[in-house]
Amino acid sequence: MASIYQSLKEEAFEANMQIPAQHLAIYTWGNVSAFDKSKSVFAIKPSGVPYPELSVENMVVVDLDGKKIEGSLNPSSDTLTHCVLYREFAVKDGIEMRGIVHTHSTYAVAWAQAMRPIPLFGTTHADHVQTEIPCTPYLSEEMVKKNYELETGNAIVQHFCNLKYNPAEVNMVLVGGHGPFAWGKTPSYAVYNAAVLEEVSKMASITLQVNPGATPLPEYIIDKHYLRKHGPNAYYGQ
Amino acid sequence: MASIYQSLKEEAFEANMQIPAQHLAIYTWGNVSAFDKSKSVFAIKPSGVPYPELSVENMVVVDLDGKKIEGSLNPSSDTLTHCVLYREFAVKDGIEMRGIVHTHSTYAVAWAQAMRPIPLFGTTHADHVQTEIPCTPYLSEEMVKKNYELETGNAIVQHFCNLKYNPAEVNMVLVGGHGPFAWGKTPSYAVYNAAVLEEVSKMASITLQVNPGATPLPEYIIDKHYLRKHGPNAYYGQ
Amino acid sequence: MASIYQSLKEEAFEANMQIPAQHLAIYTWGNVSAFDKSKSVFAIKPSGVPYPELSVENMVVVDLDGKKIEGSLNPSSDTLTHCVLYREFAVKDGIEMRGIVHTHSTYAVAWAQAMRPIPLFGTTHADHVQTEIPCTPYLSEEMVKKNYELETGNAIVQHFCNLKYNPAEVNMVLVGGHGPFAWGKTPSYAVYNAAVLEEVSKMASITLQVNPGATPLPEYIIDKHYLRKHGPNAYYGQ
Amino acid sequence: MASIYQSLKEEAFEANMQIPAQHLAIYTWGNVSAFDKSKSVFAIKPSGVPYPELSVENMVVVDLDGKKIEGSLNPSSDTLTHCVLYREFAVKDGIEMRGIVHTHSTYAVAWAQAMRPIPLFGTTHADHVQTEIPCTPYLSEEMVKKNYELETGNAIVQHFCNLKYNPAEVNMVLVGGHGPFAWGKTPSYAVYNAAVLEEVSKMASITLQVNPGATPLPEYIIDKHYLRKHGPNAYYGQ
Repeated sequence: MASIYQSLKEEAFEANMQIPAQHLAIYTWGNVSAFDKSKSVFAIKPSGVPYPELSVENMVVVDLDGKKIEGSLNPSSDTLTHCVLYREFAVKDGIEMRGIVHTHSTYAVAWAQAMRPIPLFGTTHADHVQTEIPCTPYLSEEMVKKNYELETGNAIVQHFCNLKYNPAEVNMVLVGGHGPFAWGKTPSYAVYNAAVLEEVSKMASITLQVNPGATPLPEYIIDKHYLRKHGPNAYYGQ
Repeated sequence: MASIYQSLKEEAFEANMQIPAQHLAIYTWGNVSAFDKSKSVFAIKPSGVPYPELSVENMVVVDLDGKKIEGSLNPSSDTLTHCVLYREFAVKDGIEMRGIVHTHSTYAVAWAQAMRPIPLFGTTHADHVQTEIPCTPYLSEEMVKKNYELETGNAIVQHFCNLKYNPAEVNMVLVGGHGPFAWGKTPSYAVYNAAVLEEVSKMASITLQVNPGATPLPEYIIDKHYLRKHGPNAYYGQ
Repeated sequence: MASIYQSLKEEAFEANMQIPAQHLAIYTWGNVSAFDKSKSVFAIKPSGVPYPELSVENMVVVDLDGKKIEGSLNPSSDTLTHCVLYREFAVKDGIEMRGIVHTHSTYAVAWAQAMRPIPLFGTTHADHVQTEIPCTPYLSEEMVKKNYELETGNAIVQHFCNLKYNPAEVNMVLVGGHGPFAWGKTPSYAVYNAAVLEEVSKMASITLQVNPGATPLPEYIIDKHYLRKHGPNAYYGQ
Repeated sequence: MASIYQSLKEEAFEANMQIPAQHLAIYTWGNVSAFDKSKSVFAIKPSGVPYPELSVENMVVVDLDGKKIEGSLNPSSDTLTHCVLYREFAVKDGIEMRGIVHTHSTYAVAWAQAMRPIPLFGTTHADHVQTEIPCTPYLSEEMVKKNYELETGNAIVQHFCNLKYNPAEVNMVLVGGHGPFAWGKTPSYAVYNAAVLEEVSKMASITLQVNPGATPLPEYIIDKHYLRKHGPNAYYGQ
């Protein structure tokens, strides 16, 4: 008999397979989850399993406290970070957010290691996000010792709160010293955002190399690019 | 019954498929058009459609005001930029120019974000263009608010006018803060020029990294390289 | 009749084929060995043979003095370096270490040429190693003239001794002016570590480019990341 | 009836096809020749023909003055540079040199554009060449106007003479502002050297980025690495 989470696990599996396809991680260094708000559960990659060994069947279903609901393997060690983001952003803030992805993509990690938010240098960035890509400070020693993965989620939420960023609009972040998280309306769109972040990270590093004094794009161009793709008057696409 | 624009749409389709093949954009981030001067129309990529879903049939045919002539999908959101360039360069200046391409290729975007024209450092560049690759200033707020895509075309035309560059010879440009446009005698040759621009951008960034004081190629070598490939005494090729 | 080293040669062959698969070397620029502690021998790539011409049959079996035990070809010219590392780390120190790999992967070589240990900038690094990736000083002229490959092994051992690094935990090193060596519990895990080193090297170089004043990850985050993957309380994986 | 140059054309064709296979040029930006000293001719790529359209049949055979001996297409526009190098190095100096390659590979071109010889930073370089990779000054205006391609060859020969470099040992060079040439005992080995040059160029640029004060490898390590691969006491390979 098919699992009642069958389609959720299928979505999680397909989105996880996009990580190697889009060159966003080597070996096992990334994970995607697929969230079902009505059931308060998400399906996520099992921990430490290489992408070629993934299947719909070995996706793990957990609830919003990270408790395993279905599956024989351990869920991703980052599961509690996903829990916090779904609880705070999708449930509490009511944002349409059915997928979260974490990778160790090369250029995004480099910016996270540099502890620098990614400046908004151009329209490739502005097409997707109207702000710098935020970078959280290091977690405190207390947070790391208490519950590292859960506090990683809290650090993201707190940083968005401090910056007054709306996670429905800013759907990617660098965890300082660690790497990128991204999310989206669907798991597949979350991976798209992770790929955007990697490309924007690479473009920004080359921009700085070519012109160390490069300045951000003017606000009125940012708004134009963002709004032609997003919001009620968007006219990009079909 | 076949469209009277069938062969134009085929050319547009094939040139658009060269964008991912030459690694000039990820996802949907680029578009090529194919122009028929005798009919005053061009075929262009539909907006926001991923390359694997493109077909000859879903190419969109528009006139030089951007009005849709044939096709069920919306044309690229950059259509009016193409309109301006065909009107000004191909029709008014009489330049042989049957293709235009816009991409978000990584290194060319980085130079555009750096707001720097690409210096003419070597013969790879001089084989194709005898000048720096120009980079337009940011569009003014007024231009952005009036008609962004049309004014992007005007900004390119105005910049060429200011620099006294001949678009028959300088067939590529960076739009400051945005990214590259290139054109050519055929749609396929336009994509070739976009690939040249990306490679020249990458070479120039590494040149500067290795020698921040790198100087331009002497004029007499530029002329030699350009003229052995272009003009009445060219002797490169068959 | 099958060789008594058949399975050892198979392991060596498969791990060597991972070098081009993981883009860790071009042409013949890398080698992996597979060690059998009970027999005091290891199987290693033959010298100068391109990867497409490798086979289980042409793997060379040598003892811990580098003397050929089985095989018609010459073993890798780096064989004596492998001998020293197995003798010192696997036999004398009793470390579980059944594979060693040497490559000329691009970014790791660049750091080795820069004569700089790789700073521990982020969690991708800390997931694998709790220290900087060490970089040995140049070998002295005397060492080079005496027995270069053997002394390369001695230089690594001496450097670990000076730094009080445990080779069971720090399983990768840069030989100054030369390139990376890595090892692991199995030959395949040694290649994994070589791939980690290359990725960490690339991330670190971009980190420095983006922020020349980048600082190391705090100790408490290093410990957390390392210990969630290693040691008695590890909870990563299955 | 088969051409008496059949095997020479086969060698030239196969070596030319290695250029795209080793990612040493895009489109038509590179050429290899195969030399037959006994017949004083070489086979070379036809000018401006994309690699997928190359065949054994369309290779062009020329003599050492660049006069076409066989073939229906025009030979590479760089043919006279090849002529000079074969005449001076292979015939006059008596060096065993049956292949020459010219490419526009990205990192080697960047160093040529930077007008800097590539410092000998590490053993990857020393395994192949015991000196910096030389970079010629710009050709004078007079040389460019007289016979550009022939004078490019003369500039290389003159630069080797000035530096007292032996082209049997230093088998690669950067033409300042232009790009790399490499040669070897066979056409295939010439392409190998071009690939070595590209990889060494990339490693050197990253080395400088990571440590702008990086210093050359000590002489005694250079000699050791070069001599274990070359000369009467070489012990690398089979």
